[in-house]
Amino acid sequence: MKDINRVSLLSIGDELLIGQVVNTNASWISQRMTEYGFEIGHHLSVADKQEDIIAGLSLLSQHTNIVVVTGGLGPTKDDITKLALATYFNDTLDFHEETYERLAAIMKRYGRTIQDSQREQCRLPSKATIYENNMGTAPGMYFDENDVHYFFMPGVPFVIKTLFTERFVPILKAQGLISDRVKTETILTAGIGESSLEEKITDIVETFPKGLGISYLPGKAQVRLRLTGHDIDQLIIDAFVKKIVDRLGDKVFGFGDETLASVVGRLAIEKGLQVGFAESCTGGAVSAQITAIPGASAYFKGSIISYANEIKEEVLHVSPETIEKHGAVSAECVEEMVAGALDVLDIDIAVAISGIAGPTGGSEEKPVGTVFIAVGDKHEIKSKRLVAAKSRDVNIDYFTSYALNLLRLFLVRGEEVVSRK
Amino acid sequence: MKDINRVSLLSIGDELLIGQVVNTNASWISQRMTEYGFEIGHHLSVADKQEDIIAGLSLLSQHTNIVVVTGGLGPTKDDITKLALATYFNDTLDFHEETYERLAAIMKRYGRTIQDSQREQCRLPSKATIYENNMGTAPGMYFDENDVHYFFMPGVPFVIKTLFTERFVPILKAQGLISDRVKTETILTAGIGESSLEEKITDIVETFPKGLGISYLPGKAQVRLRLTGHDIDQLIIDAFVKKIVDRLGDKVFGFGDETLASVVGRLAIEKGLQVGFAESCTGGAVSAQITAIPGASAYFKGSIISYANEIKEEVLHVSPETIEKHGAVSAECVEEMVAGALDVLDIDIAVAISGIAGPTGGSEEKPVGTVFIAVGDKHEIKSKRLVAAKSRDVNIDYFTSYALNLLRLFLVRGEEVVSRK
Repeated sequence: MKDINRVSLLSIGDELLIGQVVNTNASWISQRMTEYGFEIGHHLSVADKQEDIIAGLSLLSQHTNIVVVTGGLGPTKDDITKLALATYFNDTLDFHEETYERLAAIMKRYGRTIQDSQREQCRLPSKATIYENNMGTAPGMYFDENDVHYFFMPGVPFVIKTLFTERFVPILKAQGLISDRVKTETILTAGIGESSLEEKITDIVETFPKGLGISYLPGKAQVRLRLTGHDIDQLIIDAFVKKIVDRLGDKVFGFGDETLASVVGRLAIEKGLQVGFAESCTGGAVSAQITAIPGASAYFKGSIISYANEIKEEVLHVSPETIEKHGAVSAECVEEMVAGALDVLDIDIAVAISGIAGPTGGSEEKPVGTVFIAVGDKHEIKSKRLVAAKSRDVNIDYFTSYALNLLRLFLVRGEEVVSRK
Repeated sequence: MKDINRVSLLSIGDELLIGQVVNTNASWISQRMTEYGFEIGHHLSVADKQEDIIAGLSLLSQHTNIVVVTGGLGPTKDDITKLALATYFNDTLDFHEETYERLAAIMKRYGRTIQDSQREQCRLPSKATIYENNMGTAPGMYFDENDVHYFFMPGVPFVIKTLFTERFVPILKAQGLISDRVKTETILTAGIGESSLEEKITDIVETFPKGLGISYLPGKAQVRLRLTGHDIDQLIIDAFVKKIVDRLGDKVFGFGDETLASVVGRLAIEKGLQVGFAESCTGGAVSAQITAIPGASAYFKGSIISYANEIKEEVLHVSPETIEKHGAVSAECVEEMVAGALDVLDIDIAVAISGIAGPTGGSEEKPVGTVFIAVGDKHEIKSKRLVAAKSRDVNIDYFTSYALNLLRLFLVRGEEVVSRK
């Protein structure tokens, strides 16, 4: 017996099986589908082989009624996958005029003519509903066979993101597969652990009506709370979201797809403030997260990566005595780094990070994973000691989240922060 | 019919299916297994549900004779997985004295006593060979049933890396599953595309003896060449590796698990040079890759992230006229940024990056994806224009690889580079 809301993902591609590519498509699609209230049954990855693709489709369609397939389409792989589809769906490949015209138009725009291999790309299964892909040459396809809905997309992540939202969600809705009865809301928190969080809101969760549920999704120094309502009025869900947000206060940094870096950006723009960083152990990772957000130049001027003590002293003007007396990993040092960054970068708010990412360099007093983070403006500089005792890369990720969260809190709380401009 | 060398991966965990965690374990294990000459048949991820785990094991054992299972072990999930194993292998869970003693010793070290839930963790399938895990509490398990070899590991990435190398590779060898007859060598290249690469060495590849093969594994601004020999003498493989390396010259940046950042580090240490960066559009990503390598402080002093033109002018002393006349994305600007970084950071070699990551900010003359990179020392500063017309995050990744590769080439070629010290 199939569950109406059960989805499986089939990823096609040798590059996945040899470990050359990490399957981020499966995670991304699963997140979206989960938010739409679907249950994900399996992720299966198979090689670019006809028999493996057919066996995969066959297996997944036995357990779920929606199969989302990514990869295996495009100039070099098309043949194998499309022949597999023709066999599996007992179908023929027909020349698809519209796809050809679209391809020819794209080629023309680049001053090129269409080639034989591209003409071959226009032969598509006759039973498929073809959905054009504005992000590339290979189109998306949809099949509805024996009560199973199959969605095929090329494997390129940014193409999938667009096709999924613009093409496949509308089909899911049109087919009545996305139920208006399932609603989800995601609350993003930072600076509080999963179990403290659970404890803090347990009395609210206990009053949830039947059909409303909560999941705790921990990430690096962050926990997402996902509320899922089945047959629950949106107003009731909103009321519980509000109750939880009020209880958690500034542990809540945002909702849905926001990130600490995007929220910092939004707050900085709202307040008309310029930010920057003095990074030691994070080595540029904080600044890189900030600049990963399009439009960061509106509030981010720059940073000093002061990995060596000389740079702390000579560029950020940290006093050699401070480092001598307290060490470079100390409250005193990061506070002076903030003061230096405010001055050198001529910004409104600066954050400084100095810690021990590991695997070596720890001491009894300051073990690997110890970090000092300071944040401040021309009126006030505060610092905090935190610990993340993991591997080097995980520690750096934690330090980065801590730093962005302290900056966010400073932006939220700092009524006194005034732009220098 | 089973292929003796076919492996499947089963990943257990709700967190994978809801997309909260990206399955990097599957990629990592697949890379290692591929290097050992195995063919990977499937990656399958299932939820923490007994029936799904059993169905997954059953399916994979039909198609492959080695099943590597990750996840589903540890204090909170143990029960489900171990009961699934007991059912699947028709086994009982017995109290495992050695595991208990090891756990008790760990607890004692932390001044704690063992708890009931931890005692429960010591009940293990009687048919399993138990392999202790020095990185955590949940042990690894091995079953050999009906000519299928099953390996179970907890799902924590750094635990898997250790257990795989220290415990499972020795079992694979002891069971005769790793054939000495399969050998692989990986050559790492940068600065040359897959098709140019293929063309450049096609005559060498044509002379490969039967049993020696090559795969091209493209990454971001890099291509790995993997040579796999079946029943080929190591000396012959080495000779072909040498031929290819000689042909490709400095397009080859390393071998095996090296990265551009680790090679830059090795070269800088060999030459006793200090490096640093002036980053604009990469916003700290280059410095972050350099500092991700343990021990980077031996050759990396720091960087200036000059996102705003003011920082380029005021911290790096780029002349306002240069920016006015040529723009911040220009050869002239990045060359002055290098000169400024050499001076401000007091380093031997500096690299500067300024480009248009997108999605906006491009022009006809300099479209989105255009980047200028300069590298230099006190004798000489060179710059290069490159294009990577993708999405913002992919462009930044490309720019970062380009910059690290130009630094590597400067370190390799720069006989004239002399330490300032």
